[in-house]
Amino acid sequence: MADLVFRDVRLFSPGLEVQGDALAVTAGCVSWIGPSREAPAAIKVVEGQGRWLTPGLIDCHTHVVYAGSRANEFEKRLQGVSYQQIAAEGGGILATVAATRSASFDDLLASSQKRVDALVAGGVTTLDSKSGYGLDLESELKCLQVSKELKGPRIVRGFLGAHSVPPEFRPDADAYIGHLIGTILPKVEPECDYVDAFCETVAFSPTQIARLFEATSKPVRLHADQLSDSGGGALAARFGALSADHLEYVSSESLDLMAQAGTVAVLLPGAYYMLREPVAPPVKPMRERGIAMAVASDLNPGTSPLASLPLAMNMACVLFGLTVEESWLGVTVHAAQALGRPELGRLEVGAAADLALWNFDHPRELVAHLGVSFLEGSWVEGRELVSA
Amino acid sequence: MADLVFRDVRLFSPGLEVQGDALAVTAGCVSWIGPSREAPAAIKVVEGQGRWLTPGLIDCHTHVVYAGSRANEFEKRLQGVSYQQIAAEGGGILATVAATRSASFDDLLASSQKRVDALVAGGVTTLDSKSGYGLDLESELKCLQVSKELKGPRIVRGFLGAHSVPPEFRPDADAYIGHLIGTILPKVEPECDYVDAFCETVAFSPTQIARLFEATSKPVRLHADQLSDSGGGALAARFGALSADHLEYVSSESLDLMAQAGTVAVLLPGAYYMLREPVAPPVKPMRERGIAMAVASDLNPGTSPLASLPLAMNMACVLFGLTVEESWLGVTVHAAQALGRPELGRLEVGAAADLALWNFDHPRELVAHLGVSFLEGSWVEGRELVSA
Repeated sequence: MADLVFRDVRLFSPGLEVQGDALAVTAGCVSWIGPSREAPAAIKVVEGQGRWLTPGLIDCHTHVVYAGSRANEFEKRLQGVSYQQIAAEGGGILATVAATRSASFDDLLASSQKRVDALVAGGVTTLDSKSGYGLDLESELKCLQVSKELKGPRIVRGFLGAHSVPPEFRPDADAYIGHLIGTILPKVEPECDYVDAFCETVAFSPTQIARLFEATSKPVRLHADQLSDSGGGALAARFGALSADHLEYVSSESLDLMAQAGTVAVLLPGAYYMLREPVAPPVKPMRERGIAMAVASDLNPGTSPLASLPLAMNMACVLFGLTVEESWLGVTVHAAQALGRPELGRLEVGAAADLALWNFDHPRELVAHLGVSFLEGSWVEGRELVSA
Repeated sequence: MADLVFRDVRLFSPGLEVQGDALAVTAGCVSWIGPSREAPAAIKVVEGQGRWLTPGLIDCHTHVVYAGSRANEFEKRLQGVSYQQIAAEGGGILATVAATRSASFDDLLASSQKRVDALVAGGVTTLDSKSGYGLDLESELKCLQVSKELKGPRIVRGFLGAHSVPPEFRPDADAYIGHLIGTILPKVEPECDYVDAFCETVAFSPTQIARLFEATSKPVRLHADQLSDSGGGALAARFGALSADHLEYVSSESLDLMAQAGTVAVLLPGAYYMLREPVAPPVKPMRERGIAMAVASDLNPGTSPLASLPLAMNMACVLFGLTVEESWLGVTVHAAQALGRPELGRLEVGAAADLALWNFDHPRELVAHLGVSFLEGSWVEGRELVSA
């Protein structure tokens, strides 16, 4: 007796051949796949009527926990005010840090939950959530604990203390890295799944980040080569990072090293679009090297206020030239790999029963359309997330 | 006794100064605006709790009535297949014409209604709906009658028989124009609010369109200068068109004439984005000439499968450089002007009570975010459309 059976569904699992039109769930995992007429009895049966059943989507790069809004900066930039001027007036990332530090736990949770719900409505069942708008011990812990309390999808938590130098340390980034290593890291490591950092001229140098990465036993990920080639891809590879993210300016040498290290390239077209970046990530060289490419929303209040993973998939195709198949791989198996959770993002016996049911005629429809909702239901470990 | 009163709302009507925090509706129109404490009694009262109340959004350019899907072409293009090859295989606009001709009235209505519902979920209360995938008398009438049966928003219907030369007339565009004028136009004029045409090297010449426009007594609109400068803007102005739409390649001379004629420039960033057009419409020259700019979804199965007007507003800002204020004007007063319905899109006594209630902190939030739903309720002529 299974817990849940889907009958008369079309099964699609990116990168896998799946035979059958029925799937059973037992104890939170996929326990059987085959023809509907042979499906086991189950406590609950979903008659799919020919709808598509896929792995739930995985958004492997978000900054979903923050307080405040930076829509005023969006408006100012369109009126011709420069980034520099906005930053000089206390805007940019430090505006979000100030709002996040002063927000209560409950307010921070409530505002973050709304964004999670928007992503879930688009089919997300696993969500990355990075800290990085606290930048002091108490506030970073608050953000990681809020992430833990988010309702709905599976949450993977990243510690991004090395996101920006906080005001009380500026301009001494080295001193802040020392503080991260000596004071904050030991306290937050039990509260995170991986350690992340922002390698960029406006953030931290490869040397500073190497100090941090050497100090942690957690897996690492890296914001790399977004605005310039800082050797971020190579740095990520050197530490066997799960992923290097952004990569608009990554060099060929870095890509070679990433391919050797098995580091996933996480593509973030929302930020590219909002910043009107002139250079796209080198998708063809990544493809040629067999580097796994993931696609994520990068949901954040400044450079990617994007709460729809299907829209990010469309942008990855239109703006970066991914194929439809690559965009689906990018939010399933490759996203799972970027999170260090290879058991997710696939329909096969033994895999986690994180599922999405859709009313499109073909999976390509999800990617080809903008602003259309196709989700009919979703499940995490076989438990209903969005009602079918 | 009013029919409906909103109390404790923040009122925002693009281009107008509105005083007060309450609004009353009587017989489908705004009957009073003022302070909540002086609000008239009403059959129904909505307590806004400080939420924003704005005119309902107007999507002034859509091709929402069609059958079939062209997502397969989206997938092929990303695999490197050229437009020419797709067209040679029966793809492109003629694929949609074939599917639309063969669809039953009920199936066409059902599939179109889904797209209308998606736009309505984004705040739309008035919707343009063009024919143009029938291209014969029976099928064009079917599309216009389906438009009339669409549930929910106010619908404005355009006859776009001059969208493409149908297969049975190819390559003789002149003969098809003659057929449109002699046979189709007299029958469809009672079923449309305006006549539209596509002026482009791949569609119809200015001379051909002038013949059509001379033959109708209806207001006209024009798809103009999207892929090349065909003098479309000037042609629109010459016929006192309500609008000229797309305008990526419009000339300065055409803009001068449009400004004199009071022709609205309808900007369609969805198609620009999907086609990866290298040239954006000349927003600054339009602004300098005082040309009213509208923003629309251009929802269609090929070049703009976009069912979110807020996303089009964001794209108009990010890709074309509109300000937040211009994007709001573009989906309210200027969109109303493009449809020849200047009584819509404004909060003032005597205006139609087409309204939207939002849970954002400021109207700029709607434009700055992507994939976030802020709508709490909407009304057409004071009747509830989306439940508050």
